[in-house]
Amino acid sequence: MARNASLSGFPEWLPQERLVELHVLDTLRRTFELHGFSSIETRAVETVGQLLRKGEIDKEVYRLSRLQEEEPGADAKSTSDAKADAALALHFDLTVPFARYVVENAGYLAFPFRRYQIQKVWRGERPQDGRAREFTQADIDVVADGELPFRYDVELALVIVEALSALPIPAFKLRVNNRRLAEGFYRGIGLADTAGVLRSIDKLDKIGAEAVAGLLKAELGATDSQARAALALASIRTEDTSFVGQVRALGITNELLEQGLSELQQVVSAAALRAPGSVEADLSIARGLDYYTGTVYETVLVGHENLGSICSGGRYESLAVKGNRSFPGVGLSIGVTRLVSRIVGQQLAVASRSVPTAVLITLANDDSWPQAQDVASVLRDRGIATEVAAKAEKFGKQIKYADRRGIPFVWFTAEDGSHQVKDIRSGDQAAADPASWAPPTEDLQPSVAVAPPAL
Amino acid sequence: MARNASLSGFPEWLPQERLVELHVLDTLRRTFELHGFSSIETRAVETVGQLLRKGEIDKEVYRLSRLQEEEPGADAKSTSDAKADAALALHFDLTVPFARYVVENAGYLAFPFRRYQIQKVWRGERPQDGRAREFTQADIDVVADGELPFRYDVELALVIVEALSALPIPAFKLRVNNRRLAEGFYRGIGLADTAGVLRSIDKLDKIGAEAVAGLLKAELGATDSQARAALALASIRTEDTSFVGQVRALGITNELLEQGLSELQQVVSAAALRAPGSVEADLSIARGLDYYTGTVYETVLVGHENLGSICSGGRYESLAVKGNRSFPGVGLSIGVTRLVSRIVGQQLAVASRSVPTAVLITLANDDSWPQAQDVASVLRDRGIATEVAAKAEKFGKQIKYADRRGIPFVWFTAEDGSHQVKDIRSGDQAAADPASWAPPTEDLQPSVAVAPPAL
Repeated sequence: MARNASLSGFPEWLPQERLVELHVLDTLRRTFELHGFSSIETRAVETVGQLLRKGEIDKEVYRLSRLQEEEPGADAKSTSDAKADAALALHFDLTVPFARYVVENAGYLAFPFRRYQIQKVWRGERPQDGRAREFTQADIDVVADGELPFRYDVELALVIVEALSALPIPAFKLRVNNRRLAEGFYRGIGLADTAGVLRSIDKLDKIGAEAVAGLLKAELGATDSQARAALALASIRTEDTSFVGQVRALGITNELLEQGLSELQQVVSAAALRAPGSVEADLSIARGLDYYTGTVYETVLVGHENLGSICSGGRYESLAVKGNRSFPGVGLSIGVTRLVSRIVGQQLAVASRSVPTAVLITLANDDSWPQAQDVASVLRDRGIATEVAAKAEKFGKQIKYADRRGIPFVWFTAEDGSHQVKDIRSGDQAAADPASWAPPTEDLQPSVAVAPPAL
Repeated sequence: MARNASLSGFPEWLPQERLVELHVLDTLRRTFELHGFSSIETRAVETVGQLLRKGEIDKEVYRLSRLQEEEPGADAKSTSDAKADAALALHFDLTVPFARYVVENAGYLAFPFRRYQIQKVWRGERPQDGRAREFTQADIDVVADGELPFRYDVELALVIVEALSALPIPAFKLRVNNRRLAEGFYRGIGLADTAGVLRSIDKLDKIGAEAVAGLLKAELGATDSQARAALALASIRTEDTSFVGQVRALGITNELLEQGLSELQQVVSAAALRAPGSVEADLSIARGLDYYTGTVYETVLVGHENLGSICSGGRYESLAVKGNRSFPGVGLSIGVTRLVSRIVGQQLAVASRSVPTAVLITLANDDSWPQAQDVASVLRDRGIATEVAAKAEKFGKQIKYADRRGIPFVWFTAEDGSHQVKDIRSGDQAAADPASWAPPTEDLQPSVAVAPPAL
């Protein structure tokens, strides 16, 4: 992005950059639909009560009030908790709204329900590289009414790998871990506060192994050997199922650990077969602040690790609850704005032109506009994006207009009704018939291609 | 919509309804791109100062504050106007944000700049039929740096007629008027407060001619004959250019009136030729509360006039100003949510199924999941949306799952590796090869068709 956003944390794209974003969104949509996910959207607002339902919240929420309310902010300061809960706020992710949607519409949905949801979300955090206040997420989830077979954890990893592989981005690694594996292991070594251990392990990248060992000992009363064992587990990272042997070599037995090992093995072995090199078991992945209960996923762009995870998710044993019905789910969320900001900012991929238009119909004289519209109609009916000049300026000026807008072809109609079309890049000009002429396939629409690396 | 929104004014769609909305959005996008409009999006928020820039505001604006701010609402109550102006609020239309975007990015855009913008907007008004608090608008505008030929007013009417004609909606009428025509006429009959007259005429539909005449006399000091003349003008409505003769017959001459007549004539004559029956000159259209300076447009669905205008717009002599540069524009905005609410609510059109999936690959036994994924991959590579069963339940159960989700085909792979595919609607079953089988074109993707009228 050449320009800075005029409001920090609220990026906006120029038309040519927006084409990159549209390409990303179209590609994701197509992949998700090919895998049978239905599109839904939820409203941008939830009640504050709904957003804070899960208790501790690390997201900065934007609350709404009507500008013309008598006393702005009155609701939030009300002593009535119910009233404060009913106040409206912008959603900070697509999972909380989806859970509400499932509960509200359970009677109308066929379970297991597969949905994708691509929408903006808002967080009032301090903006920084890769972190905006308004950004687009693309989520897929499968949610069941009752029981959700583990196989969906495998399938969703494969769908996401296919979706990310179709994008104009560098290589990525989908890192997978399993909460059961980690929790079983911690219990097996005698650390009962498994959530506490996960929270410490989550800091591994930031503060390093020694500091994490210190935390485990100081905050959780771990012994030296317990801390060493927890860190040994977190150091395991394999692209095949050899992590199982490495965990077993640590000599801990626990039923939950075995279940987690088996689950993670299923994900990694299917991925090693169907998407070799894209997925790895990474036993340091904790996602400590989220409410996952089994599989957890995180994704980094190779060479862009500083961007943070571009796609995360996991399994929720109960995404939503309605009376005595429980809705387990598994899903992932792609950080579209984070990806597009990086693609655009470092020109990792570029659009071939900035307008959809393939051809400009010029005017020989001012009265020829209706005939030019006729030609344009015939071309558009055949799927060719076409503009008509608004004024019969000198041809040079009309060609310059096309050039300035990046329109590759200009069209001339002579007084005798014959047509010529000119490729303004090469200067080639030839006779053409509106009923049959088409630009080369690569010029039909703007395309987005990975840019060659800068020298 | 069978269900009520759980939050009044914030509609949400079921997957099958969402397909109708997606069809509308895709159709609009395609039409706009075929005419050379570039996609842009602007952030959902503007500063309060920007939103209120145009002075009198009849839109109810949602202001934002961070939930964790020390004193919610502090900004708005601040005695500092500058601080209150800098507070953030959700945009209530796409025109104000577009004007800001043009000014901020003028150096990066090629003028005349053609853009479409499809986004949600928010207004805290009392919800009612056809009026939501969160709704999607689809806007097209052309904006110039300096001078914008009138021809664009003609072109945009034609583009919108083409876009609306491609939607699964009843017949519509795009009603066009011209502010210059009206203002010139009012001056010609001696009524100098032309804005006041427009405001009264704008109430014609609601309160009737006699009450409007009363207003003109009481509030603007019009004489009987002035009021009669203003109402005579507003009663003119033609699908061809005969309105010109009818206006002339009222015997008023004025330069601005002549200019307006000529402009409106250009729009209506082009439309009568290229889109007969879709456009009419309606000299009662005032759009009194907007800041148009020439052409004004409004659109009603025939038989659904109670819905209000589904597409409105006009010409702004200065959409935006930057220093001594002025950016005139002309554009229209389609009320997508208003349209989709009516289509869904009255089932004017329906989706052929609720999922993208065309075929479900069944499992003969639990170990065949990887082979089933292979078949699915081959089908997806050929553009066929495919799901794989998660469990090797009895075939009857797997077929029931497909049926419940509206998936038309199920796929069986025998132990010898041979394949069969069954149309579960007809029961027809035949041998199939993953490398060549395809569903009939009409089953490839869910389609949206106008529903036959109920008997």
